[in-house]
Amino acid sequence: MKIGVIGGGQLGRMLALAGTPLGMNFAFLDPAPDACAAPLGEHLRADYGDQDHLRQLADEVDLVTFEFESVPAETVAFLSQFVPVYPSAESLRIARDRWFEKSMFKDLGIPTPAFADIQSQADLDAAVATIGLPAVLKTRTLGYDGKGQKVLRTAEDVVDTFAELGSVPCLLEGFVAFSGEVSLIAVRARDGETRFYPLVHNTHENGILRLSVASEDHLLQKLAEDYAGRVLKQLDYVGVLAFEFFEVDGGLKANEIAPRVHNSGHWTIEGAECSQFENHLRAVAGLPLGSTAKVGESAMLNFIGEVPAVHQVVAIDECHLHHYGKAFKVGRKVGHATLRCDDMATLEQKIQKVEALIKG
Amino acid sequence: MKIGVIGGGQLGRMLALAGTPLGMNFAFLDPAPDACAAPLGEHLRADYGDQDHLRQLADEVDLVTFEFESVPAETVAFLSQFVPVYPSAESLRIARDRWFEKSMFKDLGIPTPAFADIQSQADLDAAVATIGLPAVLKTRTLGYDGKGQKVLRTAEDVVDTFAELGSVPCLLEGFVAFSGEVSLIAVRARDGETRFYPLVHNTHENGILRLSVASEDHLLQKLAEDYAGRVLKQLDYVGVLAFEFFEVDGGLKANEIAPRVHNSGHWTIEGAECSQFENHLRAVAGLPLGSTAKVGESAMLNFIGEVPAVHQVVAIDECHLHHYGKAFKVGRKVGHATLRCDDMATLEQKIQKVEALIKG
Repeated sequence: MKIGVIGGGQLGRMLALAGTPLGMNFAFLDPAPDACAAPLGEHLRADYGDQDHLRQLADEVDLVTFEFESVPAETVAFLSQFVPVYPSAESLRIARDRWFEKSMFKDLGIPTPAFADIQSQADLDAAVATIGLPAVLKTRTLGYDGKGQKVLRTAEDVVDTFAELGSVPCLLEGFVAFSGEVSLIAVRARDGETRFYPLVHNTHENGILRLSVASEDHLLQKLAEDYAGRVLKQLDYVGVLAFEFFEVDGGLKANEIAPRVHNSGHWTIEGAECSQFENHLRAVAGLPLGSTAKVGESAMLNFIGEVPAVHQVVAIDECHLHHYGKAFKVGRKVGHATLRCDDMATLEQKIQKVEALIKG
Repeated sequence: MKIGVIGGGQLGRMLALAGTPLGMNFAFLDPAPDACAAPLGEHLRADYGDQDHLRQLADEVDLVTFEFESVPAETVAFLSQFVPVYPSAESLRIARDRWFEKSMFKDLGIPTPAFADIQSQADLDAAVATIGLPAVLKTRTLGYDGKGQKVLRTAEDVVDTFAELGSVPCLLEGFVAFSGEVSLIAVRARDGETRFYPLVHNTHENGILRLSVASEDHLLQKLAEDYAGRVLKQLDYVGVLAFEFFEVDGGLKANEIAPRVHNSGHWTIEGAECSQFENHLRAVAGLPLGSTAKVGESAMLNFIGEVPAVHQVVAIDECHLHHYGKAFKVGRKVGHATLRCDDMATLEQKIQKVEALIKG
């Protein structure tokens, strides 16, 4: 089976590493000459709107999936004429736009921070009057890793901010005093079977994920599964979906979903019986889903900007390096390490060892 | 770091899957147009003696390693002029020739079946008179998976047998009434550090490995490590070495070594903290070795001739498919499955489930 992937970054790379042992081949559509998934499959180097290359991809592969959600709607619609596309155009339409996404949460009875659609500075001023400060203004589409957003703390911060973010449609979100951030990696098969990985505690720095720790019997696991299950069913979703939540007053408020494999699920490569990457491929390929059970305790640390010296990373026992083969650049995710061990105390010690290398 | 691999079969494929996350790139030299490692790296399609392509490979990579031991000595010698080669030319010279190999075992005080060098039918007749029947006549080089050998049970079997195996140098081995076959996967770093995986029980059918089960606290573990350690030190070996033994009367007799990653170590991908493939690459690249500890109980079953339907294999929980992407052909290794679970009783049940698929 040949899988087409829109995007050829590290998520595509890890999909190919997981799918090759299933007998799958891969083709990546990515305009970047140095797309880091390219060594593991065919690289169609073209823009995402290039219909000739999209048609070529559709002709060559059995199905198409995505490694990022900001794919133009026209691309998805065009491909869908010729080849099965998972997750669906509708799933991407909702997930790529914060207004559609938050509105769906509301419709499904899933708590979220207060939010408002912002089409102008006047909209923003009105929404701030209702929602209050502090609040966060985010572009409705194309934001990631803290990009395309601004925290508004004072009335002064609000002035001209709509123009500052590019005068594009935005969402204003009420600030949430959360006690923690957790994410749930879910996977849904073509036949509707759904499985969930254990909730993950996430730590961000400057809007970028830094550390994910898989939890053991989290008190909010079932609640998170309930919320995610509603979304999966609503979208008739196929594949892996990541659901980010804020922990607030012993409950959960939905932050956002990502219709794809997710950074906070990278620990599953070593830390779960079947990884998020393999399970995504199983789902889209119509295969039975794999076990989402944990194997011991796991944590993942991102390498941002640069990967520490390889010999130092692998010298830490039970530390698994994932080097993305990308050029190093400030603020860029270029690799991660997964720690997997039998108990949380050992895990904590090893996290400190990796952090020492990062600060290093 | 770019690694050159002589051979582009499934062992090369699994080396690339293990090395890519370490930030390594791969080039495979293999004359086969459909070499199954090719999708994971550069494919230099040329004969193993093609000096132009060998020179190209040497120029492109940081070091060269092997996925099979029958590489011509001239190839290794030629490459060694330009680029580091691991394991060494001397290690390959010994391991590829049953006479050198068995003689080394004898010199190092490692028990082996009785053996004799056979250069003619007269040598064979004389050796049979000394060693007795039954015995096994094997070509000194190029044999694998039961090919290039003949079991001699009666005086009649001995007649003209030297010619039957091609009148090439052979080794006669006394038959060993063994109670089991085990193998030890060992890895030795450039600095001499050595690690061993748990002993594996192997079951062969028609000379081809069928089933490997990793053992728990095998009584002969330390003895096997002692024997393997002598060989590794003698050869100043770098990389993974597989050592096959017969279990005889509560002890071990050396069968053969393979100077490479080995089929009986495939279970380590899921079943050990760091796989034989990653550890081989760490060793040859001068990196610290990874943990060889088991993660639960593991077994590996080979798919020979064909891979059962993928959806049936992956429907077995905790069953990990490794499809080599090779054309199906009677007697050919085309894939394997690793089962990994918490206890031996569950493992036994799952082995039966996979065997039921194989028998179809």
